[in-house]
Formats: sequence, C-alpha cells, structure tokens
Amino acid sequence: MNIRQLIEKTRTYRRFDEKYEIDTDTLVSLVDLARLSASGANRQPLKYILVNDAAQRASVYSCLAWAGYLTTWEGPDPGERPSAYIIILGDKEISDSFGIDHGVAAQSIMLGATEKGLGGCIIASVKKEKLRAVMNISNGYEVLLVLALGKPVEKVVLETIQNNDVKYWRDDARVHHVPKRTLDEIILRK
Amino acid sequence: MNIRQLIEKTRTYRRFDEKYEIDTDTLVSLVDLARLSASGANRQPLKYILVNDAAQRASVYSCLAWAGYLTTWEGPDPGERPSAYIIILGDKEISDSFGIDHGVAAQSIMLGATEKGLGGCIIASVKKEKLRAVMNISNGYEVLLVLALGKPVEKVVLETIQNNDVKYWRDDARVHHVPKRTLDEIILRK
Repeated sequence: MNIRQLIEKTRTYRRFDEKYEIDTDTLVSLVDLARLSASGANRQPLKYILVNDAAQRASVYSCLAWAGYLTTWEGPDPGERPSAYIIILGDKEISDSFGIDHGVAAQSIMLGATEKGLGGCIIASVKKEKLRAVMNISNGYEVLLVLALGKPVEKVVLETIQNNDVKYWRDDARVHHVPKRTLDEIILRK
Repeated sequence: MNIRQLIEKTRTYRRFDEKYEIDTDTLVSLVDLARLSASGANRQPLKYILVNDAAQRASVYSCLAWAGYLTTWEGPDPGERPSAYIIILGDKEISDSFGIDHGVAAQSIMLGATEKGLGGCIIASVKKEKLRAVMNISNGYEVLLVLALGKPVEKVVLETIQNNDVKYWRDDARVHHVPKRTLDEIILRK
C-alpha cells in the first residue's frame, strides 16, 4: 500500500471482533513507530502503557466515551470491544507541554495498525482521573490519549460534506458514514 | 516502502536543494492526505495555505526559527532553503480548540512528502503575528504550524540516547545526529 491507500484505509473504527487477540509484540512494534517519529525539540516526552489482557481491557473500557454523535449508542457491545489499548502519557518530568507530539505519535501508530490489518480509534474523551486510578498512573504523567485497537467488523465510508454538517451517522445496515470537507473548502490559497 | 521504512526515512531536514521546485499539485496532494486523516469529533477545523513562489517563500522564511540546539546556526543559507511551505491554520469559526488534529495532519503530510522523495520540518516555533501580517491571515484563523518542504541535502542519523541528552548535533561532515530514547524507556508497562 502506498501512503494514500494506507491513510484512506485508516478510518476510525469502533466495533471489533473481540475474539481476535493482539499480542504484546505487535503493540510494541506499533509504539516503535511512534518512537521513531518527530518530537518537538526532540524532547520525546511521551510514555506508553500497553493493555491486552481481558481484565485490564475492561478497566480501560470503563473510562472511555464513544461516538458523540451517535447519541443512542453507548459504545461497542461485549464481543465487539477493542482487543487492546495503547495509553499515551506525557511525562511531566521531561516537559510540561506536549505540543503536537501525541498527535504525530497517534497517527504513526494508527497507520501501522492499518498495515497489520487492524484498526481503531484515537480517543481523547477519557475519564482521566478514573483511568489514573484503575491503571495506577502516577501524577507525574499526564493522560493524553487512549488508542483503542482491534480487528474491525464495521464498514466505514467517506462522503462529501453536505450543508456543512460534520456529524457522522450510521445507516440501517450499520454502515458508518463520515462526511469530509472538500479540498476547495480547506485550502484557502494556493 | 512499508510504514516502518517510511517513518524511519521521515526525518527532520533543515537543508535543501532550493533549486528543486515543488509544484502546487504536489502540495495539494499532500493536503489531501491530511484531509482524509482523523479529526476530533470529525469537525475538520484545519485550513491550509500553500506557498511555493519565491517572494512568498522569503516572507514565510523570515517568520521561522530553526534548530534550537544548533546555537551557532541561524538557519539554512540561501540556496539551501525550503522550496515550499504548507501553513496550517485553525479555523476559529469551526472550533476554538484543535486538539491533536494538526499533529495528525502534519504527520500525514510529512509521510507523504517522504514517499515523493521530499523531506522537511514541522515548525511550531513561528513568529505568528509577523506571519499573519506578511501572509495576510485574518484573526479568524489561529496559526498552528508551518511545514517546510524541499529536497533534502543533509544526512540525518538516529542514535540511541546517552545520559538522557536529547540534543541533536552536527558533526564536522555536517551529518545531523538525533538521539532517540529506547523502547524500554518509553514503555512503562506491557
């Protein structure tokens, strides 16, 4: 796959085959992609916690909010939940601001996941104090993101935005539709 | 190239063959990669200005800070400056916070640039008010990042960090050395 194909395929997925296991080596190899990516002033302040065992997965799951626009859907049912999580933390001993480092890192990891036939969701809407408690994360770390990963079982399609409405939606066949702005709208000058 | 090779090759470059021209279509195709990437709550608040003509390049260049750790180097000499810039703005009519959107977008664009044989630098250290003035950017947009792009003429090597020293450095042959933390250091638990 070239990068365009990889990015097109890297959609946000929220329903997975939970029986599919993601081993620790796979998660480590994904973090290694983030490790090799750019970091502001090369400070490299990000730290990672890898989660793929069932009990910890349940703990992490309880701290996440899913799909704000799907107001009648509380998140994936048991059996369709993520097989693994990568928690991204900011090490406050190294820096007190993390700029775009976790955005860069998250994109590297999600692209790597796609290449491995996986998919997932970058989740910023996290009950951070609860996650800190259940995962025993000290105050020296800021909770930045949780990446949910699994084998996707849903179909996601991109569409051209209509009437400036950015809300994604699900049809009767549970296909997930995502409106995207056009190049003409987002490029101000060229 | 697989994603690992692409990320390994996507180093921060600050010296370019300035005679090499980057056409507008190339810049548009790079922004399209960002357009297709994840955006928080799918709001897609980012806007882009593409710069590849000589006069505008000089204006943008005057607003940038280069390589904080190379204290005796003020930036690339004429002839080694970027061939193009992509300015990333946040549209405040759409959102008043941009989360990690510009980090995700920047990484997609830089990976796409690598695939095209280009390279560059994600610059957050920008004289934002000056850039706003010289590029006539209204207050409705927040200046988030400037991506400098060109045909790299420097060699960059990754090394394992020593003594917790993250400062990159240049040797006598002008090879640029970048210390990276190890997986053992950045993965807290697995």
